[in-house]
Order: sequence, then structure tokens, then C-alpha cells
Amino acid sequence: MKIYLDNNATTKVDERVVEAMKPYFSKLYGNPNSLHQFGRETHPGIKKAIDQVYSAINANDNDDIIFTSCATESNNWIIKSVWLDLIKNGNKNHIITTEVEHPSVLSTYKFLESQGVKVTYLPVNREGFVTAEAVKNAITEETVLISIMLANNETGVIFPIKEITEIAHEKGILVHTDAVQAVGKIPVDVQDLGVDFLSMSAHKFHGPKGIGALFIKENIKISPLFHGGSQMGGLRSGTLNVPYIVGMGEAIELAVKSLPKLNSEIRKLRDKLEDELLKISDTFVVGKRENRTPNTILISVRGVEGEGMLWDLDRRFGIAAATGSACASEDLEANPVLEAIGAEEDLAHTAIRLSLSRFTTADEVDYTIEKFKESVERLRAISSSYAKV
Amino acid sequence: MKIYLDNNATTKVDERVVEAMKPYFSKLYGNPNSLHQFGRETHPGIKKAIDQVYSAINANDNDDIIFTSCATESNNWIIKSVWLDLIKNGNKNHIITTEVEHPSVLSTYKFLESQGVKVTYLPVNREGFVTAEAVKNAITEETVLISIMLANNETGVIFPIKEITEIAHEKGILVHTDAVQAVGKIPVDVQDLGVDFLSMSAHKFHGPKGIGALFIKENIKISPLFHGGSQMGGLRSGTLNVPYIVGMGEAIELAVKSLPKLNSEIRKLRDKLEDELLKISDTFVVGKRENRTPNTILISVRGVEGEGMLWDLDRRFGIAAATGSACASEDLEANPVLEAIGAEEDLAHTAIRLSLSRFTTADEVDYTIEKFKESVERLRAISSSYAKV
Repeated sequence: MKIYLDNNATTKVDERVVEAMKPYFSKLYGNPNSLHQFGRETHPGIKKAIDQVYSAINANDNDDIIFTSCATESNNWIIKSVWLDLIKNGNKNHIITTEVEHPSVLSTYKFLESQGVKVTYLPVNREGFVTAEAVKNAITEETVLISIMLANNETGVIFPIKEITEIAHEKGILVHTDAVQAVGKIPVDVQDLGVDFLSMSAHKFHGPKGIGALFIKENIKISPLFHGGSQMGGLRSGTLNVPYIVGMGEAIELAVKSLPKLNSEIRKLRDKLEDELLKISDTFVVGKRENRTPNTILISVRGVEGEGMLWDLDRRFGIAAATGSACASEDLEANPVLEAIGAEEDLAHTAIRLSLSRFTTADEVDYTIEKFKESVERLRAISSSYAKV
Repeated sequence: MKIYLDNNATTKVDERVVEAMKPYFSKLYGNPNSLHQFGRETHPGIKKAIDQVYSAINANDNDDIIFTSCATESNNWIIKSVWLDLIKNGNKNHIITTEVEHPSVLSTYKFLESQGVKVTYLPVNREGFVTAEAVKNAITEETVLISIMLANNETGVIFPIKEITEIAHEKGILVHTDAVQAVGKIPVDVQDLGVDFLSMSAHKFHGPKGIGALFIKENIKISPLFHGGSQMGGLRSGTLNVPYIVGMGEAIELAVKSLPKLNSEIRKLRDKLEDELLKISDTFVVGKRENRTPNTILISVRGVEGEGMLWDLDRRFGIAAATGSACASEDLEANPVLEAIGAEEDLAHTAIRLSLSRFTTADEVDYTIEKFKESVERLRAISSSYAKV
């Protein structure tokens, strides 16, 4: 048995995406910037992909969507450009974010702090949520940017970005949202959200690893992170990764088409899984279910070390889960969201994240329910800490 | 007829590279940083690729080779880190480069100049060459980095990096070389060159577009360009692009294996092409042939506008050539190398670059010789400027 329930870490590339990319390796291999036929014949594929991405997030023709190598690049780019363009050359010096952002956002803000920038890291409440009110209260005269994710990678909790943007824009503050865990899971509409910048990553919605994008609202100019040739209007230099651009376009179109399935069939499977796991004593799930992406469960199982549970599920039962962001999984640290919501020390290490995809089946969920319970039973039986409770 | 002689812009992905990458899209799709089997099963492929890249450039186990999304990223990274780490936090403020570097290097230095860094752009001589002596003379007490390409993208001229490194290291100056146009065309040995940093890009040697690497010599620490998770020892965050890493490994191994063919068979084809084209009156090729990569010709044809020639070769005969870097080819500018060597104004627009690959055939070269001559004849006949000569 091999069951993949770690779709918030990365996803299987859809076979249709692989098919779409194939011709661009050895047949349509020209450099799109070249003036000859080999260059030109890549253009229709690129144009289609651009249209697919614009359409998927309802961007305007005047907005910019720039392909990057991943959301980590998108996040680094927008944050460092705000620093270089607006903070170093301006008179404001304050950014608001949360304690539960992805490492690529948090680490970049740590870097900015080392350069003298003031950063407020908002905590989340017991539900793993940040209210627009809390954001409003953190705004100062110096605030230049608010940067908050659209959906949390560990809990799936959806943050009130539209409300936050309205508050921010009243005060002339720019808004960036890391929408990596939202695109392909819930409808994402940049017109409705109103944000100025939005990051995304193809490998979270069954596209390839190694390509992402940054949405930049019309009339906003930012400096590039990569200086170089004139690709993408000079905003992101480097030879275009044509196969992956084509793949990202295809993947996002398929993901948007799959939203109804994800929000009905898969959501029901997730709910069933969650309901069953919550029947285990001394467990809790972070975040109100109706305010989470339809595929994610972050469950705390008292007395069971997350890493041990992962090991057991993986080695004994072939079930792939996570204790949190794969980008931080080489370190055996407490789950940062459980820490942020103020869970007791012994609970912060008990989080297991299960994340489904449109390829998850009812059988896989049933099998997981059975084995998860079995695993908890076994691990609690040998747990000294749980025995003491 | 469709003939591709623009291999310095980009190359066809070798079918064997495509085969090697294939399993990593929809089968071995785990995130390598995940602790479960889906993550682990990607490790052998990544390990093999790392070994292939280390071996191809003769790196030490203690050296770092970090995968990036392209050489533009590698170049931006090393240059900006030297700025942040050594210039902003140190007391030296001078960098030496050349006038004929790739746009990703030149634009980044322009950015550094805007931040107060002093940059010397060395000119090239009539042969498109920079002597180690010229570099030596440009060194000041303030010089912290010398950054010069190993082979020029437009002429194929090979720069004396080993000599330059020896001079630099005597004075404690770091050396970076952009080896994008050298790897896969001539032997590149980091031990022999002695450089501290070396950039490369897979799509120049029949690997995929969208992956490159930065070599960092042992014991040298630089800050990341992307802050984030702990991937690649924290030096380059972002989910690993597993298929392309595997593809780059395969491509560089194949490229090194093809060096003998490239430097005998393909070199002979290049020489034949060059000899024949030089029989056309009023033409010259930049750079001593024995000091160029074996696949490149930059030829100036008096009285023939480069862009017009490209158009003619492409539209009438199906031959893909270039007027210079594809990264600058959307702008109709004079060829920067011809400008740098001090060619007269009317010659600076007459450059055509022909770049072969290991897939180029004798028939393609014969056809190109015939059609190139035909094209020059036609264009000169209708050229007002050439008539006046």
C-alpha cells in the first residue's frame, strides 16, 4: 500500500500536464527570445499558458504575472524589492506579517530585520486565525507593506485577505499574499481580493516543481530580483523555462476545473477522515472546518510524538503524512502553528498534517482511518509521557 | 529545411535527458525534504545528479555546488552576496569585470553601481580578448572581486581565467567566472582554474531550460539570494526541482563525454564553415580560432545588416542564427562585442553568430555555406551602404 497524504508539501504532476510539456524539450526547443522560427514556434504555447494563468486568478490584461522558479523566489522578490524600492528610498520602515507564514517569507523578514527594517509578526488565535482587526491595530504611520498568506500550509486556515486589503488600501499600504496553499484549493480571484502582489507555485496544484509566479497589480512598479536580459519586460531575467511555463498553464487550468470536485467529493473525504480521527481520545484539529481549505487536517494526538507517528504511518503502513512544512522538515522542531496558537510544550510536538488531493480515493481514506488508529494505540502504549497523563 | 545554428542561445534537450527526467514527474514526485518514502525515493536520482555535476567540473567533496533556476540566478546571487556580505560589511568597494559579459552580469553590476559600488569594465582587444595583464593593472587596494566569463557567448573567445585567478589570489581577491558558454564545449576543471565561484546553465549543453548551478569553493561562505527553508544547506531555498536536477546531471555527463567529438568532428565542421564564409569579400571573424570554443563563429559581413541577414537566413532558407545574445535580441542594438573591440559604427550592426552543436551535421554546414553566400549576395545588391563602399 502506498498512500500519499502530503499534498501540501508537493503533488503528483498530472499526466495531462506532462503531455503538454513534452514537445517543448526536444522538438520546440528554441529560445523564445530568439528571432528565428525555432524561437517563434514556442510563442503559441507560452501565450496559451499566460492566458491560462491570468484566467485562473481573474487577472486584468494590465496586471503583470511574472513566471519565477518557485514561490520562494516570488516571496523573496516582492519582499526584497519593497525593501530596496520603498524602504531604503523612502521614509517608512515597517512591515506587518504573521508568525505562521511559510519559511520563505519569515526568513526573508528576518533578513530585512538584520538590515534595520521593523517587522511585526502577528500571532494567531486558538483557531490558527488572524483577524483583520488585529492587522488594523498593528498598522503604524510607518507601515509600508502587509504580507499575510491566503491559506496556511499547516492548518489550511484561510485568512481574511480581502478585508485586510480594504483596511490597508485606505491607508495607502501595499498588500502581498502568499497564495501557494490556496490556488487550486479554493477560488482565488485577484480582483475580488484586491491584493497588490500574490505568490503561487505550480507544484502545489499538480504542476511541476521549479516554477511559480508573482502577480503584480497594474500600475505597480517593482525592481527585479534577477537583473539581466530583457525577458518578461526586464522584471525577471533568465531564459524562459518554456516546458514548465506550458505545464503551469495547463496545471492551473486543470486545478480550477477541479475546484468543484475538491470542494465537494474531496472535502467530504477529508471531513470523514477528520471525524473519525477525532473519535480518538485526546485529539484536536486546529482551525474551524468551514474556514479551511478542503484538503487539509492538522491534528494533535496527545502523547504521540509527531515524528514517531510519521515513521510508523510511513514504514508500517505506507502512508505519507507530514509534521508541518516540508521546507522545515529536516529539523525536528515543534510545529510552529501549534506553538503560535500557544499549545502546551508537550503538545507542540504532536501535530500530524494530512493533506488530500483530487487523486485521493475513498479506499485510501478508509485505510488511513484504520491504520492511523492502530498506530496511535501502539504508540500511546509505549509512550511514557502519555502513560503519565 | 530547418537548420539550428543558434546553440549558444539554447540547445535541444538530448532525448536521453528527457528519458532520465520522465519518472520524476508523476511517479517519483515526492518532495525530497519530506521524511516519508515518497520523499526518500527521489534521493538516489538527486545523489546521482550531484555526483555527475561534481565529476564533470572536477569539484571536491568539500566544495558546494548549488542548483539554481538558471545562470542568471547564479550570477545575480554571487554578485549580490559579495555586495551584501563583503562590500556593505567591509571596507573594500571595487569589482573588476569586462565590457563583454552576459547581460545578467552587466545589469547586476549596473545595479551595484546604483548602490555605490565602484565597478571597472575592462575593454577587449581587437581579438575580443582580455589579457591577464589588463586585469592585473586594474586591481586596486579596494578590489574585492574579479568576475570574468570563461568563454564569451558571442565570439567563443576563451579568457585566461586560470592566470587571472593566480594574480587575484596573490592579493586575496575572490574570482567568479560565468562558465555558461564553456561547460560542455571545452574541459572545465575548477581545481585547475582555481576560481572561487563558477556559474553554469543546463540548457546550454542539451539539458532543460530553467536549471543552473553555482559552484562555491570549499570554505567560502556566502549569503543566500533566496531566504527560506533549509534546502541545500540553507544556501538556496525552494522545493528542489527534482526532474531538472536529474536532467542536468545526465546532460552534463553526456556533454563531457561528447567533448572529444565536439573538439574534433564539430570543430572541423565549424572551421570549414568559417573558411568558406571568409572567402566572401569584406568579412572578418572575431577572435583567434585556436582560442575559441569549437562551435562558435561571430562573423561581420560589411554592408549587410545583421538583422536583415538573420531574417533572410531564417525565412528564405530555414537557418537559425543570431546577431548576439538572445537575452538582448529583442532590442535592435549594435553587437556589443563588435562595439567593444572598436569596430566602426557601420560594422557594429553587421555581426552574425553561428553556433553549432554535437547534433550539427556536415550536410547542414554545406547547405548553410551555400545559402549564406546567396543571402549576402542578394542583400549586398540591395544595400545602399555597401554600394557606396
